[in-house]
Amino acid sequence: MSILVVGSVALDTVKTPFGKRKEALGGSAVYFSTSAIFFSPVSIVAVIGEDFPKKYIDFLQKKGMDLRGLEVRKGKTFRWEGEYDWDFSNPRTLSTELNVFSDFNPDIPAEYRDINHVFLANIDPEIQMAVLKQMKKPRLIACDTMNYWIENKRKALLKLLKNVQIFLLNESEARELTGESNLVKASRSILKMGPSRLIIKKGEHGCLLFSDKSIFSIPAFLMESIYDPTGAGDTFAGGMMGYLASCRKVNETNLRKAIVYGSVIATFTVEKFSLERLGRISRDDITKRVKEFKKLTVY
Amino acid sequence: MSILVVGSVALDTVKTPFGKRKEALGGSAVYFSTSAIFFSPVSIVAVIGEDFPKKYIDFLQKKGMDLRGLEVRKGKTFRWEGEYDWDFSNPRTLSTELNVFSDFNPDIPAEYRDINHVFLANIDPEIQMAVLKQMKKPRLIACDTMNYWIENKRKALLKLLKNVQIFLLNESEARELTGESNLVKASRSILKMGPSRLIIKKGEHGCLLFSDKSIFSIPAFLMESIYDPTGAGDTFAGGMMGYLASCRKVNETNLRKAIVYGSVIATFTVEKFSLERLGRISRDDITKRVKEFKKLTVY
Repeated sequence: MSILVVGSVALDTVKTPFGKRKEALGGSAVYFSTSAIFFSPVSIVAVIGEDFPKKYIDFLQKKGMDLRGLEVRKGKTFRWEGEYDWDFSNPRTLSTELNVFSDFNPDIPAEYRDINHVFLANIDPEIQMAVLKQMKKPRLIACDTMNYWIENKRKALLKLLKNVQIFLLNESEARELTGESNLVKASRSILKMGPSRLIIKKGEHGCLLFSDKSIFSIPAFLMESIYDPTGAGDTFAGGMMGYLASCRKVNETNLRKAIVYGSVIATFTVEKFSLERLGRISRDDITKRVKEFKKLTVY
Repeated sequence: MSILVVGSVALDTVKTPFGKRKEALGGSAVYFSTSAIFFSPVSIVAVIGEDFPKKYIDFLQKKGMDLRGLEVRKGKTFRWEGEYDWDFSNPRTLSTELNVFSDFNPDIPAEYRDINHVFLANIDPEIQMAVLKQMKKPRLIACDTMNYWIENKRKALLKLLKNVQIFLLNESEARELTGESNLVKASRSILKMGPSRLIIKKGEHGCLLFSDKSIFSIPAFLMESIYDPTGAGDTFAGGMMGYLASCRKVNETNLRKAIVYGSVIATFTVEKFSLERLGRISRDDITKRVKEFKKLTVY
């Protein structure tokens, strides 16, 4: 079944200890869809400027993305510039140019409104909510967020959380949202806010899935070298949602498998810059690495 | 089969955000043996002063430890005082009184010399080596260490590593020993130093087992409250070695199970101060928690 993703399409300038890329393809909707489309059709809602390189459009088209919701607006594309040092956990943002993304308030195309899997990537929770209101009756809604919205749009975020089933965030965001340093306690408090499932991403330390009945914990796939972690979280979300949308049922078993897929696919993203690796892998590469992950974790 | 542990028996004064204990039972040999004895007989080699409380001797005796190698010497018992804040990862040491432990140079009792599983807890690598020289032909030798020895007795440590099969250390120690921040690369460099297996303990993020053929990674059991992490590493080692000593073969399958046991038993240690919880659990408690761990990690 199809997935709708609403997020950013961006030009990223990224520097890591291993090199630099200038205005490379990036953005949450791009990483998400390139990952999700291995399992399910994906429709994108995002905005780009007139300067957006044709080769990137071609890339998305070749991947088979439905781009009818990709609006081209007068002006420049959203740009982000960041730098990572050896501790890859947090990039230093050097500049953010919102450009056409600054008044992104998407009108969901009529032909998208009955898509039944929705992923609201990390954007203003008011916009995430406005998107949801335009959708008919999705079977599954997942959303991401970030510390900025927790700090500046808490009320809107809490309203949104009443309407989503799967909420993804990272460790420090979970702590910030709840004021609780212990993740088990933090999860309990977040599940009371609305979502029936909470996914806490811990980067190189793996990830956690919480419901009111159970907890699932996996370590990360061990990487010998990380080139650029940009987009890993959205790649994870894409693999997870893509796999789920391909399942007949959204139950604990499938959710756990979905999380393994998401976390394995994210390892391809970090192996090179931008979409240089993720954009070139095959479904076989994923299957092979999932098997390696199984070997890493079986006892 | 039996295990010999050589390490400390101490009186610990520990403060955490949840309370304080003064001169409570502690020390690597105590945590190790209390954990290992669930699976295999344990003989202790350590030294205490004349002031060592009889109730603690009684505790160890009731647990069934072989204390013929526990030397009582004139003077005071080794004391450590430390404090943890909300981030439980590293205690602040307030004082260390070595006392009788300062010239600990154990003469292994003749009746211990053919024990075939040896655990050398974190002490001076020269002493660890001196212990090994007194042993006949152990089937399995494991050792722990700490940053102090990496910094101050590197040569002795490297010599020791040529003679052990399993080496345990934590993340930052692995990085310090090798000058390599990536753990896969660090593990490769450590395995070249001698041990056939390397266990890297990551605390709340689980643990890793490396050999030249494979990697095993498990997350930590999720704890809602941690009272006092003192002794968790030695409890882990005890469960791991205890389980292995009870197996007919030391192979990858049994090692992985041993690591699950070790990591599950360590969760009891941190639930209360000192041996207050670990000292009171039953084998059933362990089996039950291993099942819970399985539920947490299965996919």
